[in-house]
Amino acid sequence: MKRFQVVGIGNAMVDVLAPADEAFLAAHGIGKAVMQLIDMPRAVHLYGAIGPAREISGGSAANTIAGMAHLGGRTAYVGKVKDDQLGLIFAHDLRAQGAVYETPMAPADSEQETGRCIILVTPDGERSMNTYLGWSEFLTPDDIDAAQMAQAEWIYLEGYRFDGPASHEAFARAIRACKQAAGRVSLTLSDPFCVERHRAAFRRMIRDDVDLLFANRAELLSMYQTVDLAAALQAASAEVAIVVCTESDKGAHVLADGKHWHVPAIPTKVVDATGAGDLFAGAFLWGLTTGRDLEIAGRMGCIAASEVIGHVGARPESDLRALFARHQVL
Amino acid sequence: MKRFQVVGIGNAMVDVLAPADEAFLAAHGIGKAVMQLIDMPRAVHLYGAIGPAREISGGSAANTIAGMAHLGGRTAYVGKVKDDQLGLIFAHDLRAQGAVYETPMAPADSEQETGRCIILVTPDGERSMNTYLGWSEFLTPDDIDAAQMAQAEWIYLEGYRFDGPASHEAFARAIRACKQAAGRVSLTLSDPFCVERHRAAFRRMIRDDVDLLFANRAELLSMYQTVDLAAALQAASAEVAIVVCTESDKGAHVLADGKHWHVPAIPTKVVDATGAGDLFAGAFLWGLTTGRDLEIAGRMGCIAASEVIGHVGARPESDLRALFARHQVL
Repeated sequence: MKRFQVVGIGNAMVDVLAPADEAFLAAHGIGKAVMQLIDMPRAVHLYGAIGPAREISGGSAANTIAGMAHLGGRTAYVGKVKDDQLGLIFAHDLRAQGAVYETPMAPADSEQETGRCIILVTPDGERSMNTYLGWSEFLTPDDIDAAQMAQAEWIYLEGYRFDGPASHEAFARAIRACKQAAGRVSLTLSDPFCVERHRAAFRRMIRDDVDLLFANRAELLSMYQTVDLAAALQAASAEVAIVVCTESDKGAHVLADGKHWHVPAIPTKVVDATGAGDLFAGAFLWGLTTGRDLEIAGRMGCIAASEVIGHVGARPESDLRALFARHQVL
Repeated sequence: MKRFQVVGIGNAMVDVLAPADEAFLAAHGIGKAVMQLIDMPRAVHLYGAIGPAREISGGSAANTIAGMAHLGGRTAYVGKVKDDQLGLIFAHDLRAQGAVYETPMAPADSEQETGRCIILVTPDGERSMNTYLGWSEFLTPDDIDAAQMAQAEWIYLEGYRFDGPASHEAFARAIRACKQAAGRVSLTLSDPFCVERHRAAFRRMIRDDVDLLFANRAELLSMYQTVDLAAALQAASAEVAIVVCTESDKGAHVLADGKHWHVPAIPTKVVDATGAGDLFAGAFLWGLTTGRDLEIAGRMGCIAASEVIGHVGARPESDLRALFARHQVL
């Protein structure tokens, strides 16, 4: 048995969550329901404009790993923070959830700070993300422990982390070490604009290395430059062994071995959509790596997503195993 | 009209909220439902032991001021943080709520950090608080702007801040400036053990300076060293013009001018009791300073308390005015 079921790599950050209305998004030029990268001056400006907020550890792949760890999965995470208060909060929350997290912290006297994501939550529960990458941008191949990657049944790569050239090298190193030890590679496309920025690189990776692809509808359509989801699913499944495409309240599609399962969403009042896709992936990977079949793993994903959209913040608050049991998938 | 309805003075801090069970409290020697002061090594140890947490601005008087500001009240707050990430979070959240907050930050290279309160929330919703005071302990008379105190209809003094000799001088300075400008003084006793530590000083202040006393049942009993609430209420009302005593799900007592009102609590599922007393005081003071009679102000207090115990964190999340309207007190 390998030491880790999944090792995730991504942008380490703390979420700063605040309610906002549509007019606020418009007045501040914030694209709804997507992720925008911002620099520190913009982060300071935006933070000064938002209402009272709360801080909860985030980061897409980190949320996925936290979800798996919450379920009792054997996990590790790689992502860069600074030795500052937000960095210590990020590290604490991940370790307290049971994940191994050993990426060296950037020194306390360095100029960049720990990354953060200012998330505006509109009354419809949608989240609009404004990311100051901070130290998470400076993930390099040196931060990748090849031995750890070799101990992973799966690695989980966050598409967002493609926003930084040194990370391409880091991903390549992780993939090499993982594959050499017969591990497998999963990737999440993260965001439609992220796909725009990195379509060619994603495509190469999908064809050459990826065994399991996570995307939502908008991301998959962007990836395959079509408006027809069936066509996009077919194109993806021709390139990747397992394709998982979430479609918010329409549930999720799982494609593998020439089969196509549709898994229904769990009807839920959306309080804050932050982390829905991340927790879907965490639960799916947990199901997959504990021997569940793909459809059950997909149902677990939908249940976990419904938990996390029912409250503010992207980390689980209720016992997911109890929810699985209630929905008779455990 | 004075510039401020209320100026609050207290321990400025960020809350670190995490769920915990009774066994965790016992194993770590944490007194349930009260506040314990801890030093930095204990804070580090305890933080290492708790599960994933979330960070929300707190501080008792700061919560009260945030509640008033949320209601549209003209408020200011005085309390000490450092120029670090948690200090900036504290300052942002208070200002974003509409309060004036001008206390100079301690420099970024100073040794102490911004104060924080590790709050363990048990399944019954009760909160057990472990406070690292950090810079909030070093509030001195120099941090009190006499001109600001003179602009206050009321000042609101947090009993917790008696844990520091320089603060006694700071409080005295604030009281003097406020009273000389015909302002009035309110005090919250904060915590039964806080009353134990400072009974004599509190008593002097109550007799000499306080026009409005806030306490909960345990605090008032400790103050007057009796187990009979009626006796404690009578003793307090002999010394202070307005006495407000909250009694959790039994509601609150308001005594003034020889009258005694009992205000019922709003039945609520307790998710996290943190801030119930603080928000009661904020809503009560808002009612009082907008010309409501004392019974209505008390009802507003109970409604605001019910809002804040219905979610994690000690700052309001729903529109309190809308709640007041629904309960026909507005």
